[in-house]
Amino acid sequence: MSAHPPSDSPGGAGLRPGMVYLVGAGPGDPELLTVKAARLLAGAEVVVYDRLVSPPILDLIGPGTSRIYAGKALDRHHLPQDEINQLLVTLARTGRSVVRLKGGDPYIFGRGSEEAACLAAAGIPFEVVPGITAAAGGAAYAGIPLTHRGLASSVRFLTGHGADNMALCHDWAGLADPNTTLVVYMGLTNLGDIVEQLIAHGMDPATPAAAVQAATTPAQRRVVATVATLAEAVEKADLEPPTLLVLGRVVELAETLAWFGAEAATLARQASG
Amino acid sequence: MSAHPPSDSPGGAGLRPGMVYLVGAGPGDPELLTVKAARLLAGAEVVVYDRLVSPPILDLIGPGTSRIYAGKALDRHHLPQDEINQLLVTLARTGRSVVRLKGGDPYIFGRGSEEAACLAAAGIPFEVVPGITAAAGGAAYAGIPLTHRGLASSVRFLTGHGADNMALCHDWAGLADPNTTLVVYMGLTNLGDIVEQLIAHGMDPATPAAAVQAATTPAQRRVVATVATLAEAVEKADLEPPTLLVLGRVVELAETLAWFGAEAATLARQASG
Ligand SMILES: C[S@@+](CC[C@H](N)C(=O)[O-])C[C@H]1O[C@@H](n2cnc3c(N)ncnc32)[C@H](O)[C@@H]1O
Ligand SMILES: C[S@@+](CC[C@H](N)C(=O)[O-])C[C@H]1O[C@@H](n2cnc3c(N)ncnc32)[C@H](O)[C@@H]1O
Repeated sequence: MSAHPPSDSPGGAGLRPGMVYLVGAGPGDPELLTVKAARLLAGAEVVVYDRLVSPPILDLIGPGTSRIYAGKALDRHHLPQDEINQLLVTLARTGRSVVRLKGGDPYIFGRGSEEAACLAAAGIPFEVVPGITAAAGGAAYAGIPLTHRGLASSVRFLTGHGADNMALCHDWAGLADPNTTLVVYMGLTNLGDIVEQLIAHGMDPATPAAAVQAATTPAQRRVVATVATLAEAVEKADLEPPTLLVLGRVVELAETLAWFGAEAATLARQASG
Repeated sequence: MSAHPPSDSPGGAGLRPGMVYLVGAGPGDPELLTVKAARLLAGAEVVVYDRLVSPPILDLIGPGTSRIYAGKALDRHHLPQDEINQLLVTLARTGRSVVRLKGGDPYIFGRGSEEAACLAAAGIPFEVVPGITAAAGGAAYAGIPLTHRGLASSVRFLTGHGADNMALCHDWAGLADPNTTLVVYMGLTNLGDIVEQLIAHGMDPATPAAAVQAATTPAQRRVVATVATLAEAVEKADLEPPTLLVLGRVVELAETLAWFGAEAATLARQASG
């Protein structure tokens, strides 16, 4: 098999044979795919997808398209990312158009840039399609702005997962800034440690804080508490991954700005009753 | 005129009369609209849009839809945001379906939450549709991941515009963290001050830094330098707003991961020549 044979099939929807598209799938609601992502999903010859991509999004994959689930591999240790990188290279070299579909945005805690670097090194052409990251989806659908005049002039995304990305070696003192909204990805397991560190480094324990499970999907659930009480409230509500933590004064607005799902329904009941 | 009269026209595409949709338009490429944003734009009875929304996106507005440009007002001082808030309330009370279209994401330096709070106070139902924020669009299209194993375990968005959002009263020492990517919105005017403060507070002047003008559009231009040399390089290249600054070790990858527009073309020329 030669490196870049001309593909027999055109790839559809203008997709280029032998090209890998690193595509963000957004946080879950299929309507939050970008127009470009939807077009590429419908037209790709192969889609390699992650655990976090929701079933209604997978339904948008074209009928003639091969699907490869990369999630299992991701649950093992160390090697799997290399295997996924290699898989993308191998598939592209068969001359097919390949969509690599990732939850949220590929360049925010998505390891998309490791895949892109590997493709570049192998001489495989690629494109990156940004997606709605969980923080933006969660903010909009849970009624929590990420910035707001007088409440937050900056927003910071971090990971709460120790093994990943050197996290939990954070500069905690720098994190406890009252004018910055903190959004923690993968923070459920270490939630207790995270809030303890933040309080120890000067964050006001009364700062409003929220956890949002499965944001933008029918399974969305939101817990609103304070930095001091969030861990207990989340445990009581039994939230499961994927869950996002949002800490900061903007969470004050969560009741007023709720419009989606159960939260909005509760408020409507309170207003009418 | 009563508060919520039933609308004569259905609003199209399932839009609800008397409802305001606060919609992110993304950074410029019309294919980076979400599927939901595209549906709402085609079906709304009125669209109130901002200066930063690109012409090809405005072309997606339905033919029977009224368009109101709110950008002029935004260029004046203080009052205009109130006027826009009031306009949305007034339009919704006529029973029309209203899309409020904003550049990027409505809840990231977009003042969307001020509009939402005003609608909530007036009892107007609303929804928020997240958009691809400039940082995510710029990252993907300029070849700069926002996080990357070993280079950045956190990413922070701030504004470089003094009048806006208390900026330039940033906790500079907290910003000079080598493991955090900094993305500065509205940073062109104060670029010199920003880099000076960062260096004064301990950021390594050799840290790679980039500026991306009009990311994701045909007018995209990228300047790659260091924190020490960025201001001069940007001035020499004569970049104009909208421009985003990205500071941090992830910018090291900008050459390798370029795939869009002029940057990619330059690299391809170098590779083949
Ligand atoms: C490996 S990271 C991937 C992030 C992704 N690249 C993005 O931009 O959203 C997975 C984490 O993202 C967060 N996440 C992803 N989707 C979510 C959703 N729908 N609701 C809440 N959190 C979500 C959770 O914190 C989860 O542990
Ligand atoms: C008022 S803020 C609005 C941000 C918007 N809500 C978002 O989420 O992208 C405007 C700033 O966003 C940045 N920006 C918006 N679109 C951009 C683009 N296409 N390329 C580069 N920067 C952009 C620029 O820094 C600009 O000064």
